[in-house]
Amino acid sequence: MFAILKLGGSILCDKNVPYSINWENLQNIGIEIKEALEYYRKEEINLKLIIVHGGGSFGHPVAKKYLKNGKFVDMGKGYWEIQKAMRKFNNIVIDELQNFEIPVVSIQPSSFITFDKDLNLRFDTNAIEKMLEKDLIPVIHGDIVIDERENNFKIFSGDHALPHLSKKLNPDLSLHASDVDGVWDTKFKVIEKIDSSNINKVLESLKPSNKEDVTGGMHLKVMECYNLGVKTIIFNGSKKRNIYNALLKNVKGTSIN
Amino acid sequence: MFAILKLGGSILCDKNVPYSINWENLQNIGIEIKEALEYYRKEEINLKLIIVHGGGSFGHPVAKKYLKNGKFVDMGKGYWEIQKAMRKFNNIVIDELQNFEIPVVSIQPSSFITFDKDLNLRFDTNAIEKMLEKDLIPVIHGDIVIDERENNFKIFSGDHALPHLSKKLNPDLSLHASDVDGVWDTKFKVIEKIDSSNINKVLESLKPSNKEDVTGGMHLKVMECYNLGVKTIIFNGSKKRNIYNALLKNVKGTSIN
Repeated sequence: MFAILKLGGSILCDKNVPYSINWENLQNIGIEIKEALEYYRKEEINLKLIIVHGGGSFGHPVAKKYLKNGKFVDMGKGYWEIQKAMRKFNNIVIDELQNFEIPVVSIQPSSFITFDKDLNLRFDTNAIEKMLEKDLIPVIHGDIVIDERENNFKIFSGDHALPHLSKKLNPDLSLHASDVDGVWDTKFKVIEKIDSSNINKVLESLKPSNKEDVTGGMHLKVMECYNLGVKTIIFNGSKKRNIYNALLKNVKGTSIN
Repeated sequence: MFAILKLGGSILCDKNVPYSINWENLQNIGIEIKEALEYYRKEEINLKLIIVHGGGSFGHPVAKKYLKNGKFVDMGKGYWEIQKAMRKFNNIVIDELQNFEIPVVSIQPSSFITFDKDLNLRFDTNAIEKMLEKDLIPVIHGDIVIDERENNFKIFSGDHALPHLSKKLNPDLSLHASDVDGVWDTKFKVIEKIDSSNINKVLESLKPSNKEDVTGGMHLKVMECYNLGVKTIIFNGSKKRNIYNALLKNVKGTSIN
């Protein structure tokens, strides 16, 4: 069993409070991932797992400081400041998961990932694949990277990482833990399934995030998953037991195919 | 002008005291790199720079905890513990250099570098090359990486990084700042030049480090540089003005060719 699990920054932090951690959610996530690992171990199934987390209230406020009219400026200082904020956040997430004896390790995108001239990701996943073979759990986070097309910089978001890794590594489960129950229709009802029959209607209804999300919000999440043709489930990761249930293929949310 | 500068862990730390920083050296290094950047700016020459630093007293004590009979064990915990110690060290080095407005950014090898089955480094330097184009100064550090040959793990040392990057990126200067004046002969006199005429004699005289250096000491430094055929200067980086002079092609030490 091979799963990729994205933990939205919104469930790990309070996005309105810079540098805040939602410790209750983070602890529950640790407990539930550990329980899922134990479940599969008892079933004599090897659960391979990659975790992705967003920038949350660490990456976003720092990134916004250096964004002027859609371009990053003063990046001799800014690149490091964004890296450092994300390392702090990533350290906290990994330390907490390690407290539950989950063998997580860190992958820092700003060290090696770029967007090329066609806005495709250049992302060597060899080390990540080898980590999985050794039962390590790589934790990849939102970060700042070079954008070769614009000769500038770009936020590498968890919402880029999840579909990219899913397409490349072909997991059994591609899970997107958000702070809502799934993708809403215009009447705030969760859409169970998004596919070619309703994608245009859905995208129309997804307005830009009101939190000035530098990474593009739900519109980007749905677009990226749909365009890459990877089946993903978007569900509420801040509801207890949902992370555990999702890793056991048993969670309610929106399936994008 | 393009230079790669390795700062030995021994000049940044006291290797005998875990988690110690040699603040005086670090500050001098910051001042002298800044002055060299200013010198070239005034000459209207663009100085491109990559900095490499070793594990110092941060990486070594943690790595040794997880080394049993030449193999790394319990790496579900250990990989992260080594990463975390090196991040702490790297944060300190980068923050201090940033204080002098040096546009340094972090490259974390454990995220993407591996040794392949033939013990060659798999090391995508594309992001690093793009950073140089944007006048950022990548700082690469010693770290833990996957060793595919041994199906285990291996220390990726600054002494691997310097010759590898020098061979691949072909700098004008490949500089190795150590805590000694160069490579000694058996009478503790600095050997000015090491080449095919004296390499065997020199290697014979280089005994293993008495500090239980997990990365191999001077023997590895000389071997790696000589075998890759990259001209490197080993000099004393803890002597004032030497870093500045080295970046201006004007330092005394041992040249390996």
